[in-house]
Amino acid sequence: MSSNTFGKLFAVTTFGESHGPAIGCVIDGCPPGIGIAPEDFRRDLERRATGRTRHTSQRREADEVEILSGVYEGRTTGTPIGLLIRNTDPRSKDYARIAEQFRPGHADYAYWQKYGIRDPRGGGRSSARETTMRVAAAVIAKKWLAEKFGVRVQGYLSQLGGIVPRGIDLSVVEDNPFFWPDAQQVAELERYMDALRKSGDSVGARVDVVATGVPPGWGEPVYGKLDGELAAALMSINAVKGVEIGDGFASVAQKGSEHRDRMTPQGFASNHAGGVLGGISTGQPLRCSVAFKPTSSLRLPVEGLDVHGNVVDVVTTGRHDPCVGIRATPICEAMVALVLIDQALRHRAQCGDVGTVAPRIPGQIHG
Amino acid sequence: MSSNTFGKLFAVTTFGESHGPAIGCVIDGCPPGIGIAPEDFRRDLERRATGRTRHTSQRREADEVEILSGVYEGRTTGTPIGLLIRNTDPRSKDYARIAEQFRPGHADYAYWQKYGIRDPRGGGRSSARETTMRVAAAVIAKKWLAEKFGVRVQGYLSQLGGIVPRGIDLSVVEDNPFFWPDAQQVAELERYMDALRKSGDSVGARVDVVATGVPPGWGEPVYGKLDGELAAALMSINAVKGVEIGDGFASVAQKGSEHRDRMTPQGFASNHAGGVLGGISTGQPLRCSVAFKPTSSLRLPVEGLDVHGNVVDVVTTGRHDPCVGIRATPICEAMVALVLIDQALRHRAQCGDVGTVAPRIPGQIHG
Amino acid sequence: MSSNTFGKLFAVTTFGESHGPAIGCVIDGCPPGIGIAPEDFRRDLERRATGRTRHTSQRREADEVEILSGVYEGRTTGTPIGLLIRNTDPRSKDYARIAEQFRPGHADYAYWQKYGIRDPRGGGRSSARETTMRVAAAVIAKKWLAEKFGVRVQGYLSQLGGIVPRGIDLSVVEDNPFFWPDAQQVAELERYMDALRKSGDSVGARVDVVATGVPPGWGEPVYGKLDGELAAALMSINAVKGVEIGDGFASVAQKGSEHRDRMTPQGFASNHAGGVLGGISTGQPLRCSVAFKPTSSLRLPVEGLDVHGNVVDVVTTGRHDPCVGIRATPICEAMVALVLIDQALRHRAQCGDVGTVAPRIPGQIHG
Amino acid sequence: MSSNTFGKLFAVTTFGESHGPAIGCVIDGCPPGIGIAPEDFRRDLERRATGRTRHTSQRREADEVEILSGVYEGRTTGTPIGLLIRNTDPRSKDYARIAEQFRPGHADYAYWQKYGIRDPRGGGRSSARETTMRVAAAVIAKKWLAEKFGVRVQGYLSQLGGIVPRGIDLSVVEDNPFFWPDAQQVAELERYMDALRKSGDSVGARVDVVATGVPPGWGEPVYGKLDGELAAALMSINAVKGVEIGDGFASVAQKGSEHRDRMTPQGFASNHAGGVLGGISTGQPLRCSVAFKPTSSLRLPVEGLDVHGNVVDVVTTGRHDPCVGIRATPICEAMVALVLIDQALRHRAQCGDVGTVAPRIPGQIHG
Repeated sequence: MSSNTFGKLFAVTTFGESHGPAIGCVIDGCPPGIGIAPEDFRRDLERRATGRTRHTSQRREADEVEILSGVYEGRTTGTPIGLLIRNTDPRSKDYARIAEQFRPGHADYAYWQKYGIRDPRGGGRSSARETTMRVAAAVIAKKWLAEKFGVRVQGYLSQLGGIVPRGIDLSVVEDNPFFWPDAQQVAELERYMDALRKSGDSVGARVDVVATGVPPGWGEPVYGKLDGELAAALMSINAVKGVEIGDGFASVAQKGSEHRDRMTPQGFASNHAGGVLGGISTGQPLRCSVAFKPTSSLRLPVEGLDVHGNVVDVVTTGRHDPCVGIRATPICEAMVALVLIDQALRHRAQCGDVGTVAPRIPGQIHG
Repeated sequence: MSSNTFGKLFAVTTFGESHGPAIGCVIDGCPPGIGIAPEDFRRDLERRATGRTRHTSQRREADEVEILSGVYEGRTTGTPIGLLIRNTDPRSKDYARIAEQFRPGHADYAYWQKYGIRDPRGGGRSSARETTMRVAAAVIAKKWLAEKFGVRVQGYLSQLGGIVPRGIDLSVVEDNPFFWPDAQQVAELERYMDALRKSGDSVGARVDVVATGVPPGWGEPVYGKLDGELAAALMSINAVKGVEIGDGFASVAQKGSEHRDRMTPQGFASNHAGGVLGGISTGQPLRCSVAFKPTSSLRLPVEGLDVHGNVVDVVTTGRHDPCVGIRATPICEAMVALVLIDQALRHRAQCGDVGTVAPRIPGQIHG
Repeated sequence: MSSNTFGKLFAVTTFGESHGPAIGCVIDGCPPGIGIAPEDFRRDLERRATGRTRHTSQRREADEVEILSGVYEGRTTGTPIGLLIRNTDPRSKDYARIAEQFRPGHADYAYWQKYGIRDPRGGGRSSARETTMRVAAAVIAKKWLAEKFGVRVQGYLSQLGGIVPRGIDLSVVEDNPFFWPDAQQVAELERYMDALRKSGDSVGARVDVVATGVPPGWGEPVYGKLDGELAAALMSINAVKGVEIGDGFASVAQKGSEHRDRMTPQGFASNHAGGVLGGISTGQPLRCSVAFKPTSSLRLPVEGLDVHGNVVDVVTTGRHDPCVGIRATPICEAMVALVLIDQALRHRAQCGDVGTVAPRIPGQIHG
Repeated sequence: MSSNTFGKLFAVTTFGESHGPAIGCVIDGCPPGIGIAPEDFRRDLERRATGRTRHTSQRREADEVEILSGVYEGRTTGTPIGLLIRNTDPRSKDYARIAEQFRPGHADYAYWQKYGIRDPRGGGRSSARETTMRVAAAVIAKKWLAEKFGVRVQGYLSQLGGIVPRGIDLSVVEDNPFFWPDAQQVAELERYMDALRKSGDSVGARVDVVATGVPPGWGEPVYGKLDGELAAALMSINAVKGVEIGDGFASVAQKGSEHRDRMTPQGFASNHAGGVLGGISTGQPLRCSVAFKPTSSLRLPVEGLDVHGNVVDVVTTGRHDPCVGIRATPICEAMVALVLIDQALRHRAQCGDVGTVAPRIPGQIHG
């Protein structure tokens, strides 16, 4: 099964283990003529990179993308784009000790039950290292979406453990290492994370993503709905335990008269729906939220089992993030962008390139 | 794009509009030799049927399934199974008035922007009528899963508006029209729903689904993860706005030392993960939750637009559920079952029929 | 596996057995706005229908198509189109005797080995009855291809047993029951077929299909090549044993200087390639040929086996064509049309709706 | 569209241009536990390699496969296998002159019309260089097929221009550079090819492939038939213009009484079908034939056009095979193996791992 391929028309196939020789991907179905250069990948890869601050894992990867195919004289040609990143800092010895252990909260036991064999080095294929290629592939997707439709995808941390933003100002998100939308709270977060790291424990996080500029009409009912594919995309990220579109679980306690977004000639009067109705974009901003569990790689020992069925004490001494949700923000953005370009191409296939019909309602007045 | 097909190996393709001549589906890839008869469909179709109590829409459909192919002398043959249900009670006149209106909170505007044409009768393809075929297809899936693996999938309402169960007793779920797990609260729910219907408003709901008996090893990293496919499957149901696996959004505020499920020779000591790690089942019970928004079809008027851009007053007078989440419970179960059989077949394709390797940890002690 | 679905973007899923209650299909991904009515299906279904002349099987089916979904007020809506044809003349008793026999040259033994069960009535799923739905689905495809691009797909019989056309005049093909391109030979064919039927034997045939108006640029290297998909499509028709594109097997003995088609400002000077280079259409007429084996359903007895391993004498007494290739002509056309619309949509997805770049070479001067 | 992926369950995605930095592939869905080492690839890659004799192109590539992922301690892990081959001998200057020319008989014009841009270096993506990765991927497929089922896939040249083998002795095929099954004719072929190269012209070829050991039951009716997928697979190879299964086009002139293979308790009495009936393998040897056109890259000048529409004289001076069919033999074998493993996994998914039912007829007595 091609379960390492994401997308149907803009199809990204990733490969590679955390501590193998390299990770890479193949992008198939990319529109021709998009300008692309190795340096285009740098900014987003740095945003997700480990080792950026003391609050994330200290693994140091150059993450230099090599373009192997599909680009000629700086432009995509329509043929498959091969991207490669060498793993330069594996430090496999950190993991040798746990090769025969099943770490609680990790995929070790599940992989071993499935395949009867597993690559234990750094979590092998189940490591978040794989998401690097999602971010790389999304660089091309975002470029096309921005140039052709003005689509912009932006994520931010909307909860860190028990802390929530007091205000939402997207303009400050890139200015702090937490992708936090309230500049006033950054010092508080620093103190919280320092204490957490000291304790040897970890904590969960919530990430919100907003995409603006998405035209109405993207999404394919009924099993290729825009929100359904977003849910699959976001849930496929390591450590994700929940996905919401628009008001999400808050909708449960809402009344219909409150939830439904009024339509006016000036635009939608609110956005409880999160930009999608019946699985198709409405032209409102697309809003989704993602729940990240706390990482299970802790210095604090825990009872586990080994491959022989013996009880063992599991302690993780490698480099790990006390909150994996923080640098997952660019990964969430990447997955949203990959869903959008795929749906854009699918819409174009069935309905043509002509754009939408009148009356077209402006995205939103407020809300 | 084949976006009306769910599943890769147990592939269910549905068709049909709410008020067209019929709805139906084709199931491709079904294992041969499963005993199946028209009456097998009845129980589950009745569970999701409209008109069952005064708390759901009063539309009255016989929902008699005709098996058109793929079954010979009562057993599946491995060839595609065609199922058909005639629409016997469309009452299209109820909807004539809104043919040119975009109902707020509905898919009308989105469909019209996408396709430039829409079937307005009863919501056309965007109606929850389509989910009937999911339930029908899942009858076959559940039978195979139960007979071959002992898998059991059970759903229940875990929140109705602001009301939550005081206790969880799955044995009472089928005894009340709300799929509610606490028999003591049924009278309270009746009163709540009566008042809601009277007010002309609607409310959201939350459905939980538990699948027991799932062996470890099902699910395909990284883009065919069990939880990712569950998310897509559940989000594809009409009115769903959120999906959680295991502790879901509660994980955000948890510590890693609290979230990770200890493994003991007697089984997992808890089930925060919800039965899946790294996208692969662990053998623990599979747990997921789904958020349903309140339906937007209300007697209460709301400002909307028509296809000419004029402001109109939208009032919905047809038969509609004041809480669509209630009878969505069997639909959620159906989608979980469809995901499971597909993953079971995919696992068998890659890894064979032999089952899991030792040590196999019992599902769970408690939690 | 969804192996009863043809096409990726214009996805046709067929179901139904020869002697079950009905056959049908679901067309997913159809562009919206195509005008379609039940009578549109009639002409092509009659062209492939059995019982038309004494030279084909005497089964008499009305083959009345019911449109179940996806069409509103005479136009496609973009949602899945369900088509249904009831089997009105099964006469299953003809086949009762061979339920436990494996007929040589038939799929009986292969199905039984694969699935451990088979529907013996009229060949079940392996009957050419299934191809009716291909022809029906292609009616919509051809309409879109003709209206939007001026594409025309025409087939003819290019060999019947040892007889080959003395001349090729496509304008006479529809005027005789053999789809034969030389009106002078029709009487000879009648005599040949009468003698063949009398003998109880059958014979093979060769069908050629030409598609004109195909713009350059359709086809997706390297595993979705236009010629590769044509080969798969045509080989999937019952009784087909070979497929050629352009000069086909004659290319083996050709020199490169002879085979390569010169390009001039007035067009290609020849068409050895058959309209496709590198898997992509060139704008030349698309040419392909298909080899049909003689049917194995004969009155002449043959040694076979039964399900218990016993040697039995197999005699087929039902209604069967002495040359299945004759009425396969519209089926070949249908498959070419289904490949073309799928490739057209795929091309539009990746490369947009804009059309081709200059210089565009006219289809062909001659050849 | 993922058109650079071959196979559904054993999914091989290739990337890379002839003269780009590298070619590679990702194999997704590979069964875990297959022993594999870099040297396993060597034999087959050498068999298809250029420069082996004076009768093939003089390009000299080391074709050293680097395993980037999916293999741990010498065994496949079930995760995607990344394979990479660096292009070490591109010599792009040979092609600079033709960057603006459309070479007749080549994909230049078609690519340029499709994408509006093309990589002219060595034919870019349309070069047969891509097939190297097919051969590499098939090494793993063949290993699994041989170890688990005893399947053996062997190809040979069955026609070179007008020359046909006088006898068929598969044991001599690997002993001569032409994969020719009659050792007596090798000197004749050498002389023929020397004269051809001297003339600056090229010639077509025919390749036959036989697969033995294929159990009955592989293949998925009706659009995933074994013969249909073989046709697609073989037609996707560069320069292929025709595909036959079993007797192929010879069936056209056959009678039904002659074509149908009698079944006896000792096996099938003949093999006109070529090992497949109704799209499913019968247990007989699988037989197929492939027609290769003569390459269009000739020293002999030909009239062509350039991108500005001007008439130009096209002369190809690079290194090219006078008969591309010769070293296509291992590529044909590779495609047959890739089809077989995919069908084997698909069969296992739907029907389980148990094998076939009695009576099982031995492959074949003779024929």
